[in-house]
Amino acid sequence: MNTEISTPSELRKMFRSGAEPIPTAGLAPGKVQANLVILPKASAFDFLLFCQRNPKPCPLIEVLEPGSYEVRTAAPGSDIRKDVPLYRIYKDGDLSEVTQSIDHVWQDDFVSFLLGCSFSFENALVSDGIRLPHFENGTNVSMYVTNIQTEPAGEFSGPMVVSMRSIPRDKIVRAVQITSRFPSVHGSPIHIGNPAEIGIRDLNQPDFGDRTVVHENEVPVFWACGVTPQSVAMHSQPPLMITHAPGHMFITDKHDSEYSIL
Amino acid sequence: MNTEISTPSELRKMFRSGAEPIPTAGLAPGKVQANLVILPKASAFDFLLFCQRNPKPCPLIEVLEPGSYEVRTAAPGSDIRKDVPLYRIYKDGDLSEVTQSIDHVWQDDFVSFLLGCSFSFENALVSDGIRLPHFENGTNVSMYVTNIQTEPAGEFSGPMVVSMRSIPRDKIVRAVQITSRFPSVHGSPIHIGNPAEIGIRDLNQPDFGDRTVVHENEVPVFWACGVTPQSVAMHSQPPLMITHAPGHMFITDKHDSEYSIL
Repeated sequence: MNTEISTPSELRKMFRSGAEPIPTAGLAPGKVQANLVILPKASAFDFLLFCQRNPKPCPLIEVLEPGSYEVRTAAPGSDIRKDVPLYRIYKDGDLSEVTQSIDHVWQDDFVSFLLGCSFSFENALVSDGIRLPHFENGTNVSMYVTNIQTEPAGEFSGPMVVSMRSIPRDKIVRAVQITSRFPSVHGSPIHIGNPAEIGIRDLNQPDFGDRTVVHENEVPVFWACGVTPQSVAMHSQPPLMITHAPGHMFITDKHDSEYSIL
Repeated sequence: MNTEISTPSELRKMFRSGAEPIPTAGLAPGKVQANLVILPKASAFDFLLFCQRNPKPCPLIEVLEPGSYEVRTAAPGSDIRKDVPLYRIYKDGDLSEVTQSIDHVWQDDFVSFLLGCSFSFENALVSDGIRLPHFENGTNVSMYVTNIQTEPAGEFSGPMVVSMRSIPRDKIVRAVQITSRFPSVHGSPIHIGNPAEIGIRDLNQPDFGDRTVVHENEVPVFWACGVTPQSVAMHSQPPLMITHAPGHMFITDKHDSEYSIL
């Protein structure tokens, strides 16, 4: 299959039909990819409130009606039960199953949350001449648990997770400007410079993802990360929660630029 | 009382103590004022989802936990049951009471929604030299029901209400830029020019507020309006809903500029 020329719709159908799961980075370039969290209705108000209170780590792209499995606005014709390459099912906070379809566990009270992903603003940074080695190497961005507490909501609370990109000093202002235009996909940085100030002990030991080399004349810049809602949801150990497997995102029909406000 | 030098906290205490209700336009200049919608928990998920799906007419400033009456983030120490100058209580969609306190009807399952208000971006427009006659005259902005449908959520649906400001041709680009910086208070315009295209028959007959004169060399520019969530909520006739009385807003401690993204 030539994934480079596939449309989001074709890619979703491919995953729906049970094709071998692959990470979605680089697929359907320029199209918005989304993190997925599915919770029963009983937990949905608190989680929606949590996202409202923490828009930087939890930027909502679309929330489906209880029981609905079509992402009507961002991906008409989709089926959220099958169109993600790989799912994780958590019970009481523990991983219980990794699966290519959640058809067998679907409940009529499931609420699906699609959350923005930094792929969108990374495209904009790279287009503007800011080099991102992990983007070019196909490795994962470095992610860290911080000492910044999210704003709690009901049963959900916990520390913010951030991603780090090493930015040349003379590009920092531009990186702030570019990512500020994308409030729906994490927006502007939450911290620039000294990692210790946000509780990161060793930049070379990320909690998730791969190590990033910070060269001379570069400064580590931190953005709120979409891993936050999953780690927070997991921390609260809901009886049942479903997410995408890391790197295996839901591919929408929307263009990255549609989520830019200017 | 000299309202010009009063802080938001002093003004809230004044209303809390039962002072004569007055419209809040012009009070605590530069501080964010908010629309209020209070609904029982049973309707709260659907309404929160409605706001998430319609961020331009329904920009959420803060949502309180069920039963909570302190606006913890935007107005610490406040009491949402008494700090608004005047409330309206609706039963099954009909106005049942206008009151200075909702203490006597408060329920432990009430969820309070504070929504942004265009006062914030009007300050920014005026500071930038764009004249707004209603702002100077103390009259109300012109508001119209359009043929633009909001994105429904559960029990909530209905047409979008817009406000109109008459902008000189050579200031339109600037007005778009300035208001785009305030996505939390309605953001950029939803329409520029011909009112008929969004279902407005006669610009001189607004559905709410006062008439605005459009001079030669000016163009009507339309923004999503905070009256939308109230009119939509009312349209769905929930058993119980409480709002602020028009023009009698909740005054927060936040600066307008804190809701600007750039």
